[in-house]
Amino acid sequence: MRIFENYESEVRGYIRSFPTIFEKAKNSILVDEQGVEYIDFFAGAGTLNYGHNNEHITNALLEYLKKDGVVHGLDMATTAKKEFIHSFQENILKPRNLEYKLQFTGPTGTNAVETALKLARLVKGRSNIISFTNGYHGLTQGSLSITGNNEYRDESYISRCNAAFMPYDGYFENIDTIEYLRKFLADGSSGVDTPAAIIVETVQGEGGINVASKEWLQRLEAICREFDILLIIDDIQVGNGRTGEFFSFEFAGINPDIVTLSKSIGGGLPMAMLLFKPELDQWKPGEHTGTFRGNNLAFVAAKTAIENYWTNDDLSKAVFYKEKILKKHLESIVQKYKQYNISIRGRGLVYGFEVLNDSSVASEISAKCFNNGLIVETAGSEGQVIKFLPPLIIDEKTLKNGLEIFEKSVEEVFLEKEKHLKMEF
Amino acid sequence: MRIFENYESEVRGYIRSFPTIFEKAKNSILVDEQGVEYIDFFAGAGTLNYGHNNEHITNALLEYLKKDGVVHGLDMATTAKKEFIHSFQENILKPRNLEYKLQFTGPTGTNAVETALKLARLVKGRSNIISFTNGYHGLTQGSLSITGNNEYRDESYISRCNAAFMPYDGYFENIDTIEYLRKFLADGSSGVDTPAAIIVETVQGEGGINVASKEWLQRLEAICREFDILLIIDDIQVGNGRTGEFFSFEFAGINPDIVTLSKSIGGGLPMAMLLFKPELDQWKPGEHTGTFRGNNLAFVAAKTAIENYWTNDDLSKAVFYKEKILKKHLESIVQKYKQYNISIRGRGLVYGFEVLNDSSVASEISAKCFNNGLIVETAGSEGQVIKFLPPLIIDEKTLKNGLEIFEKSVEEVFLEKEKHLKMEF
Amino acid sequence: MRIFENYESEVRGYIRSFPTIFEKAKNSILVDEQGVEYIDFFAGAGTLNYGHNNEHITNALLEYLKKDGVVHGLDMATTAKKEFIHSFQENILKPRNLEYKLQFTGPTGTNAVETALKLARLVKGRSNIISFTNGYHGLTQGSLSITGNNEYRDESYISRCNAAFMPYDGYFENIDTIEYLRKFLADGSSGVDTPAAIIVETVQGEGGINVASKEWLQRLEAICREFDILLIIDDIQVGNGRTGEFFSFEFAGINPDIVTLSKSIGGGLPMAMLLFKPELDQWKPGEHTGTFRGNNLAFVAAKTAIENYWTNDDLSKAVFYKEKILKKHLESIVQKYKQYNISIRGRGLVYGFEVLNDSSVASEISAKCFNNGLIVETAGSEGQVIKFLPPLIIDEKTLKNGLEIFEKSVEEVFLEKEKHLKMEF
Amino acid sequence: MRIFENYESEVRGYIRSFPTIFEKAKNSILVDEQGVEYIDFFAGAGTLNYGHNNEHITNALLEYLKKDGVVHGLDMATTAKKEFIHSFQENILKPRNLEYKLQFTGPTGTNAVETALKLARLVKGRSNIISFTNGYHGLTQGSLSITGNNEYRDESYISRCNAAFMPYDGYFENIDTIEYLRKFLADGSSGVDTPAAIIVETVQGEGGINVASKEWLQRLEAICREFDILLIIDDIQVGNGRTGEFFSFEFAGINPDIVTLSKSIGGGLPMAMLLFKPELDQWKPGEHTGTFRGNNLAFVAAKTAIENYWTNDDLSKAVFYKEKILKKHLESIVQKYKQYNISIRGRGLVYGFEVLNDSSVASEISAKCFNNGLIVETAGSEGQVIKFLPPLIIDEKTLKNGLEIFEKSVEEVFLEKEKHLKMEF
Repeated sequence: MRIFENYESEVRGYIRSFPTIFEKAKNSILVDEQGVEYIDFFAGAGTLNYGHNNEHITNALLEYLKKDGVVHGLDMATTAKKEFIHSFQENILKPRNLEYKLQFTGPTGTNAVETALKLARLVKGRSNIISFTNGYHGLTQGSLSITGNNEYRDESYISRCNAAFMPYDGYFENIDTIEYLRKFLADGSSGVDTPAAIIVETVQGEGGINVASKEWLQRLEAICREFDILLIIDDIQVGNGRTGEFFSFEFAGINPDIVTLSKSIGGGLPMAMLLFKPELDQWKPGEHTGTFRGNNLAFVAAKTAIENYWTNDDLSKAVFYKEKILKKHLESIVQKYKQYNISIRGRGLVYGFEVLNDSSVASEISAKCFNNGLIVETAGSEGQVIKFLPPLIIDEKTLKNGLEIFEKSVEEVFLEKEKHLKMEF
Repeated sequence: MRIFENYESEVRGYIRSFPTIFEKAKNSILVDEQGVEYIDFFAGAGTLNYGHNNEHITNALLEYLKKDGVVHGLDMATTAKKEFIHSFQENILKPRNLEYKLQFTGPTGTNAVETALKLARLVKGRSNIISFTNGYHGLTQGSLSITGNNEYRDESYISRCNAAFMPYDGYFENIDTIEYLRKFLADGSSGVDTPAAIIVETVQGEGGINVASKEWLQRLEAICREFDILLIIDDIQVGNGRTGEFFSFEFAGINPDIVTLSKSIGGGLPMAMLLFKPELDQWKPGEHTGTFRGNNLAFVAAKTAIENYWTNDDLSKAVFYKEKILKKHLESIVQKYKQYNISIRGRGLVYGFEVLNDSSVASEISAKCFNNGLIVETAGSEGQVIKFLPPLIIDEKTLKNGLEIFEKSVEEVFLEKEKHLKMEF
Repeated sequence: MRIFENYESEVRGYIRSFPTIFEKAKNSILVDEQGVEYIDFFAGAGTLNYGHNNEHITNALLEYLKKDGVVHGLDMATTAKKEFIHSFQENILKPRNLEYKLQFTGPTGTNAVETALKLARLVKGRSNIISFTNGYHGLTQGSLSITGNNEYRDESYISRCNAAFMPYDGYFENIDTIEYLRKFLADGSSGVDTPAAIIVETVQGEGGINVASKEWLQRLEAICREFDILLIIDDIQVGNGRTGEFFSFEFAGINPDIVTLSKSIGGGLPMAMLLFKPELDQWKPGEHTGTFRGNNLAFVAAKTAIENYWTNDDLSKAVFYKEKILKKHLESIVQKYKQYNISIRGRGLVYGFEVLNDSSVASEISAKCFNNGLIVETAGSEGQVIKFLPPLIIDEKTLKNGLEIFEKSVEEVFLEKEKHLKMEF
Repeated sequence: MRIFENYESEVRGYIRSFPTIFEKAKNSILVDEQGVEYIDFFAGAGTLNYGHNNEHITNALLEYLKKDGVVHGLDMATTAKKEFIHSFQENILKPRNLEYKLQFTGPTGTNAVETALKLARLVKGRSNIISFTNGYHGLTQGSLSITGNNEYRDESYISRCNAAFMPYDGYFENIDTIEYLRKFLADGSSGVDTPAAIIVETVQGEGGINVASKEWLQRLEAICREFDILLIIDDIQVGNGRTGEFFSFEFAGINPDIVTLSKSIGGGLPMAMLLFKPELDQWKPGEHTGTFRGNNLAFVAAKTAIENYWTNDDLSKAVFYKEKILKKHLESIVQKYKQYNISIRGRGLVYGFEVLNDSSVASEISAKCFNNGLIVETAGSEGQVIKFLPPLIIDEKTLKNGLEIFEKSVEEVFLEKEKHLKMEF
């Protein structure tokens, strides 16, 4: 590890939570240089919905590389890109009656978000954007201005421009946050200018697994229509089947104007894109660019993922089936440790586990899990929430093994807590 | 092509300049679906210094994928990352006596630039940044604020904050632009606040192949030292050997505080990183993140490129050798068409060719070249400059073939121009 | 009136509501060129608490001018300024146990607000400011950024920087807006950065006569202490005795860090100043300036006002006495027209009268009042509130006469409304 | 003086340069509480072109106050305002063939500048503004963003938005600064967006008495026309006859789109206004307001000044006559102290005196003058320039007396310098 400590910036993060050197990976398992295996309930922060080195994808990449398919193509036309677009239209958009133009941005989520903000501002001629408490949309300057967590902000970044934060669903008990937002928009003297767009995650991942209800999302869409505001769904972390359906907003029956996709869309390889309604396509040629917006290996991987997982509803069903296993197990832990006042919430295969009585315990559980062979990360403004993000393709046995390691780790942490407590008397 | 026209955003650009569907690529040659071959003098806008599907790199990728090496790793430690860092330190930094910490950012150039700006502002506690006329640093909000070209700006993006533009080397004839900059900085009433950093490209690629002299860069560095300003070299397009040496600033003997690298560093795969002096490493853990900052396939490719091309100076010598061929050929064209007043300039294997008498002719030449089997792009504020960026590993024969196609295309365009002119009488 | 129409900008406003040319004025009466008298319930938008051409003040000005006292003094020391400062300390600050430094700013309210924002940001090193829905703090760029009403904003002013708007007391029924604010501040991921200051009016004048309760202000102060935020009371419109006590915040027993004063402080002449706790006095000499910050005629007027009205509590008592008359009369109108659902609210001699059933009626009542010899203006985001701001020194008879004109005008407007309604059947 | 030290903010400035308490003033003479007389060559930083307590003006004010003319009128029509507008149109605008609408802003210079910027941005729909090195336009947030001197800026004010600074006439020796500006504007990749307006002072007062030439101003106007940019002349300090003609730009024959006026326009009382071409009058009623935009005492004073000084060209002639006296005397000092390398420059009755060999000497001379009975201030980024701004109505004798005191003070300071120097040997 000395190489990382000597040469890599102090900014490095996950390497501190999971301090070993990983060498190989397959599906839901990571293996380090000592041959130790870890079950992965983190899945690249939502990038590995199809698992590490998914066999279908790896084979497609091997074949493509062997035949010298174009690897880097800027935004020139390539066979791989053509086939991805075709497959995405046929298998994802058309069956869902969604009519969207595609824009390939630099292959990171924040690139997609920045592009979405630019397009919304360009089309509406307004500079304000509304985002939500605990929202996370990336860390380049535009995205940072709509990301809530103040750990990422510094005075000198001047990132507080033209963004207003509103309370997310459930942020206040007993307050109708949509009615609240509505009043700010309806009142010309509220100080919150009509925004070009409202951007929202249907489940806030980094923010601590906060789940917006169907009704809340529907009312949010209605507000956007009422005030002529574009609705942007940031589906980077919870799209691509994470909630069971391909898009996380499908269950609410809403029709966002712009959708950002990244993370799992490229099957583990860097890729990001924007979907938007055709009437919003007001870009001039070349007005927004980026060197790696044509990462053809990712197109190959993406197409392979779609054709193996999204031509029927087997994966969706599997997600809901595994959600039941996950939820049931977590609920049994909640019951077992009632005195700790544990909250669980989620949709599909993204779940949060928060020990309300003790926000500091989450990182201890994560560390204990790592020692026991399970990778789970924390989320939330203070890292107070354990986040479950297993690969969607995880097999039932591995899922259950992971959950057992989790339960055991929770038990160990709580036992230590209690031992400490007793010692204090 | 209909799929692109129907489904891809109007923002698409290069596909309009090079309207065919590319299927395969190897070294300096692209092949379209009809089997037509094109010599590539564009090289992914500087991403393919080692050529398309470089055999060493492809083999390394195949091997890595076959053994299920970790593909996606966030910023966790992986064997591939460790080996890249080690190789970069041993083969690139140490021989050049450069002591830098490494930070892996989201794998696009603009991510690296945004990170550099944040770091500089964080360390210096100042928000102003100085950039240069015709500078290009990317299109996310922070990078856009220091990119000169107004085609990329829109009122509603509010991108004019905390950036001041100064004239680049040679921007004005007979004006010492460094002395000019110095006066603005030395005068407390100039309106240009002392910036956290000055960011500069040693050769402006997108800006039209403007070449800063050794002396100008040295004096710029001296000014940074005098006023306690960080010097950022944006080496995204012209680093990685493009000018003959690994870093484009080596020839000037300067020692920038921060260096941005992307494009060719990943051997064609998305990768970006920041180098900075150890004393600037004032990040808190996790303060700047990004999902794809651990693109392990790119680490494998990058390490392979370094170990095949940067353990000795063969590549450097080859670049200078081929520069001579390129320059000589272009100069002969300049001589041949004296009446058109052609300017050529460049360093290593990045050259610009500008017909001063007629700025519109560049795009016509580029189009003609495409028809004749050569890919070259235009650059500059009005696309008035033909940009030569062949892969560094191009073989002499292909280089010469390409140049002959270029000369022929120029001739055809000029002939048509003259025919038109005659017809008008 | 042709001169105004031909030569004065279309931006002119009150001249449209009160279309006559005023020539003379005394106490609560304005007289136009035709000799028509108007009772003034507007009092220069709160500038004429001591009445038009108050005899004490006019005499002091005449005497000062006759003896060639310094009129314009920048911020040099003058006898008039010395005497004002002395009088303000002895009669206003000391009896209230308030220890403040004084800063004289450019003599407009917005100058004082801009200065307050600069000082707060300077001292705290934070750029964010929290303001409230319907808050009005002026229209220069800094003040505009914290003023809610969107009639004053335009995209190109870029005024949405570093300001967050929170709900004012009573903005939402059944929501504890202080608790709401507290959550945004306590949650590091809310997106609302800890501000340098919170700025608030105890009664929002322009915003439609919204009255903050004692408890709400006390809890707001407690939040400022808890999070180390400066509390700025903008007392420009409702200070200077308007609510009965000299400062509008006295009734709540709070101790703001910064107070802005303007309007009536200069007895009708342009003057503005800032009060702040001595430990905040971190300005460097000359760091904030302004040509007219030494308007000595205003100092003379201000001192005269203080010495005639603030050496005992007669004026305070009179204000509360006249408040009863005003309130009782308005309440009788509310009773008389129950079907119109009229809301009245206020403190001291600032009252609002809003016909909830019909927001458009306020401007009609104002126009009718003008025709009947009474000047009252509207306020609120849509001008839906009649604002009562008579001079504090108004005599009881004139107050009652004015109220009778008001009642008569209301009656006429309602009768016309009903006639119209009947005609439609 | 203890009252000021105890109770007034540390921000106080001129009181430190001129540490006495002034009680009376008449024309060019200030008298302190001890009866000591001072000749005033500062004239309220340009506010007292017609002298302190000008007899015509004082008499008009006394008469107006005695007859209870309206003192405070917001922007309602008053007799005094009507008469001022009429007089300004007839005596100032019409004879000069200038067709402008008038807007009365809050009565400080910075209010007028803020309003000018808002109007320009509103009309053009562009947010960028170009200002010049050493420009001074005020200290509220909008004005501060275009003021060069960094003593007034602090990181937390975020004032660096949407303003670009260009070199003023003569800023660089041997560089044609208009050609320089032109290139930035003509080049779409310069990074300087086409601004809504260019704002400029024809003579920079605070900036150190820098004088723009006729030709430079004409070429600046031509550039504004070429690029469809509004030209704003900030005539706050050097308008109102300071340069001999009423407007400081008359000599150049240019026709600015917007002109800001304040300082002397109100004859010593707070007043500010904007002039703009009728086609720019795109305000909605009430879109920009301000409590004291109707300071009727100032209207009375302003009208009196116009009618006493601007109905013929006597004052203009007198200014040019006194300029000769001033210039000749200063030139004799330059000759006398050749070894100090003194620069003098100016137009009309605004002159700068800079000891190039020793920038610190200016404040010593100013202090010495004060001790000798003369008030002169320093200007420039480091206070290195003595600024001569006597009242325009100064009588010849007092002017000469003042100049003699100045010369004597210079002599004393230089003698002390030399004594010091000798003592060091």
